[in-house]
Amino acid sequence: MIRLQSYIRDAWVDGTAAGRSFVDPTTGAVLGQIDSTGVDCAGALDHARSVGRASLAALSFAARGDLIGRIADALQAERDLWLDIARKNSGNTPRDASIDVDGGIGTLKYYARLAKSLGEATTIVEAGADKLAKADFEARHLWTTRLGAAIHINAFNFPSWGLWEKVAVAFLAGAPVVAKPASGTAWLAEAMVRAVVEAGVLPAGSLQLVCGAAEGLLDAVGPFDSIAFTGSADTGRMIRSHPAVLAANPRVAIEADSVNLALLAPTATVSSAAFERLLEQALGAVSVKAGQLCTNIRRILVPAALKEAFVEAFAGRIDGLVVGDPALAEVTVGPLVDERQLRAAMAGLALLAEETRTVRGGGLPARVVGADVASGAFLAPTLLVADTGAELSAVHDVEVFGPVVTVIPYADLDEAVMLAARGEGSLAASVYADAPSEAADLVVRLAPVHGRVLAVDTVVGRSHTGHPIVMPQCVHGGPGRAGGGEELGGLRGIRFYMQRTAIQGSPAMLEALTGGAATAAL
Amino acid sequence: MIRLQSYIRDAWVDGTAAGRSFVDPTTGAVLGQIDSTGVDCAGALDHARSVGRASLAALSFAARGDLIGRIADALQAERDLWLDIARKNSGNTPRDASIDVDGGIGTLKYYARLAKSLGEATTIVEAGADKLAKADFEARHLWTTRLGAAIHINAFNFPSWGLWEKVAVAFLAGAPVVAKPASGTAWLAEAMVRAVVEAGVLPAGSLQLVCGAAEGLLDAVGPFDSIAFTGSADTGRMIRSHPAVLAANPRVAIEADSVNLALLAPTATVSSAAFERLLEQALGAVSVKAGQLCTNIRRILVPAALKEAFVEAFAGRIDGLVVGDPALAEVTVGPLVDERQLRAAMAGLALLAEETRTVRGGGLPARVVGADVASGAFLAPTLLVADTGAELSAVHDVEVFGPVVTVIPYADLDEAVMLAARGEGSLAASVYADAPSEAADLVVRLAPVHGRVLAVDTVVGRSHTGHPIVMPQCVHGGPGRAGGGEELGGLRGIRFYMQRTAIQGSPAMLEALTGGAATAAL
Repeated sequence: MIRLQSYIRDAWVDGTAAGRSFVDPTTGAVLGQIDSTGVDCAGALDHARSVGRASLAALSFAARGDLIGRIADALQAERDLWLDIARKNSGNTPRDASIDVDGGIGTLKYYARLAKSLGEATTIVEAGADKLAKADFEARHLWTTRLGAAIHINAFNFPSWGLWEKVAVAFLAGAPVVAKPASGTAWLAEAMVRAVVEAGVLPAGSLQLVCGAAEGLLDAVGPFDSIAFTGSADTGRMIRSHPAVLAANPRVAIEADSVNLALLAPTATVSSAAFERLLEQALGAVSVKAGQLCTNIRRILVPAALKEAFVEAFAGRIDGLVVGDPALAEVTVGPLVDERQLRAAMAGLALLAEETRTVRGGGLPARVVGADVASGAFLAPTLLVADTGAELSAVHDVEVFGPVVTVIPYADLDEAVMLAARGEGSLAASVYADAPSEAADLVVRLAPVHGRVLAVDTVVGRSHTGHPIVMPQCVHGGPGRAGGGEELGGLRGIRFYMQRTAIQGSPAMLEALTGGAATAAL
Repeated sequence: MIRLQSYIRDAWVDGTAAGRSFVDPTTGAVLGQIDSTGVDCAGALDHARSVGRASLAALSFAARGDLIGRIADALQAERDLWLDIARKNSGNTPRDASIDVDGGIGTLKYYARLAKSLGEATTIVEAGADKLAKADFEARHLWTTRLGAAIHINAFNFPSWGLWEKVAVAFLAGAPVVAKPASGTAWLAEAMVRAVVEAGVLPAGSLQLVCGAAEGLLDAVGPFDSIAFTGSADTGRMIRSHPAVLAANPRVAIEADSVNLALLAPTATVSSAAFERLLEQALGAVSVKAGQLCTNIRRILVPAALKEAFVEAFAGRIDGLVVGDPALAEVTVGPLVDERQLRAAMAGLALLAEETRTVRGGGLPARVVGADVASGAFLAPTLLVADTGAELSAVHDVEVFGPVVTVIPYADLDEAVMLAARGEGSLAASVYADAPSEAADLVVRLAPVHGRVLAVDTVVGRSHTGHPIVMPQCVHGGPGRAGGGEELGGLRGIRFYMQRTAIQGSPAMLEALTGGAATAAL
């Protein structure tokens, strides 16, 4: 039996209670326990703000890049171990595990390179000075590291990527991290942090990990801390409305599940390349990570005239999927992460079923390879079809966090754009049009309600990174329901941990202030 | 008797109740009534989102610049009327009124020029594309106008500037505005909007004004709306914790009063230029607008050895101030805005008095010129002195919104920086050092906890814009207690009303998408 510890004040500590079990979702077998009872979360924040911030402030951007790179190297050295844990505790197929594990390591490597390109500076100045209408009096804008801790509250579906993408950006900014993984899949995060600690690369106080419920963490938040949360919109709302958060007014960035969409162009036909490209991404939406990605396609908008053809083709592809034990080579769809998630998905499906017709799936799978449907957390890849979009509500509001997609017809582009906005703000959209100019038109119409839009035209073909995949070069997050946060996006991500300050003074003072700063736009 | 109306759905409407009185704070005389009972705030938001947004979306940045410039022209034409209202309803001296009135018009003119420089575009693209590791697949970042309304909740101390600085930025971004002025001084805002409406320059639905309590405004907020509030930290917290705000997750920017500071350099002496420059700004802090500026100096940190000399010199300057009727030429300090503010200031003073010694003022003025201290809302310019900073709490936490300043000694720069952070985040600081290099050192130490830092060295001398003055070229706002918002700052301000979206696709698609966009960093 594994028992997870927390890493607090540069030492591993045990919780004092029995704790909660975490399982193998393929079999339902208990793998171990997690507990943080008695762990001093307030002390962890103090340690981060004092010791951790000083450790990182002493490093230039380039030196932080070295640090981030050494973390990546330490993780890369034990990649097979991480894939094994991802399979056991998250029910991941090798492809699923790679997205989480290699995605995390790759994001660290990307930020290591980016940090090194900033050289020996520790502050960033924006290009250009403004004359303030008087002689020898000007203004510039300077970014400095905030005084507080970075509090990272991560989602269960990416225990590796979710941890390291946030750490990479915070470390680049010079912010010490207190991370809390989701308890159900914290094993991978704990094991990875253990490897990094053992590699001896972490500056004192720079990274702490709370494995368990993190009682008191939010109560101890201060005005200069930055809380980055990934997970459900409901939990996001709980964080935003927490009394200590309302009182101290730390920064809060929320990256919440949203009802993302894919849009087939109005001019598409069944023989368009766009039709096939959308089918490929639709199939991914009901198989990759069993649909448990916050960016996953939930709604597919197709021209009304193409609805039946698309549904028929999509159903045919779904029939080729194999649900079962992710250790088996032929399996393409693993289980959900645990029984609780399965029940939540079933409850959501019941709401969607009231508005839609179930074409495939809709409940437990009829056939599971190498596992028992009664003990594993399997959900059948599910295709739902709506007759209309405008009159429905659940399909725009209810996210079933599993391999579930609804196809919705639209009459014209204005209706499609209106339906997109019915999601009340989403992380990611994708549009499929053969002509680049038509794709561009769809993109600009969808952009205001999305954090990211992928356009697949005949130039791109299959050479794209996929609808759900978050690239570190691109901002990740979205408006409204999607939380309003911004992560990653190259340097853009570090603004969350830094303060932009307008500096007014003499050219000589500004030169002294900014001479050693890196110049960049965030 | 004046009775204010609201401008809703492109028409002036009356409240249906008797309403609340607003007064001349110099005499206490009632000037009129304000009431919004029955005004349809939800309908106003709908009108803004549909009609108003479409009106502004049809305009290029350059055309929005023309619009903003025509608003400025309409206001400029009746400047004397605005100064008169500012004196009567805000108790402003001519200098005070100019900051509000000319500041508002000047900010509009600045944004009009800035908008025209962006040309015929309606979107903004960030410089540079990122290759996403595949052939013919790249990413760029595009800014588009959000779909919702801009909800502006303004403070009583700048009925003109507060209204127009927010409108200028929102209009540049293409966001339709529903503004709610503070009731006590709404007369000037209402009269100005009336003049702009009569000038016939406003596109349909672009600007609406709720004069009164704005019942139901926040209840109707949607996910794509943007709420910009200026005022107290307590009201800011109320807005952030409003159930509809928590549910819909609109953008919220809060610019809250903070306990701002001025810092005299450790190397200063009584004969330093820095000593005199600080005295000038300190005197402004207890006279200009009777201290009712959110950016006003509240704490002055001086080297311990200079404390008595500075206090003596400052007290001498205060003795030259004249409190009274702002219509009289010799008066340099007008009343607070109303009796309620006077009572709040007196309550705050009582808290500060427990930790400090009162050197000047501390209550009602002994002498008021041309007015009656029993009926006007006058507070004496007040100088408090602390013996130490670290052990105190009220001086770092309690903002007395009037002509009140506390002088605090510090032992060394580390202590000064620590004391600055005890404000838990402030809008503005100013530092006074003769040498530009020393000024730069102070600036970088204070920057993380401030939205703006003014450095006054011997090169700048008196040729600066002053500690409290907000310049449209510079970001305005601050971390933590100061609310965490960002306003103005040139183009930077418009990001609040726009959505940044990562766009992934072919070079041809990206060229079609961004060919007509303006290129800028926000």
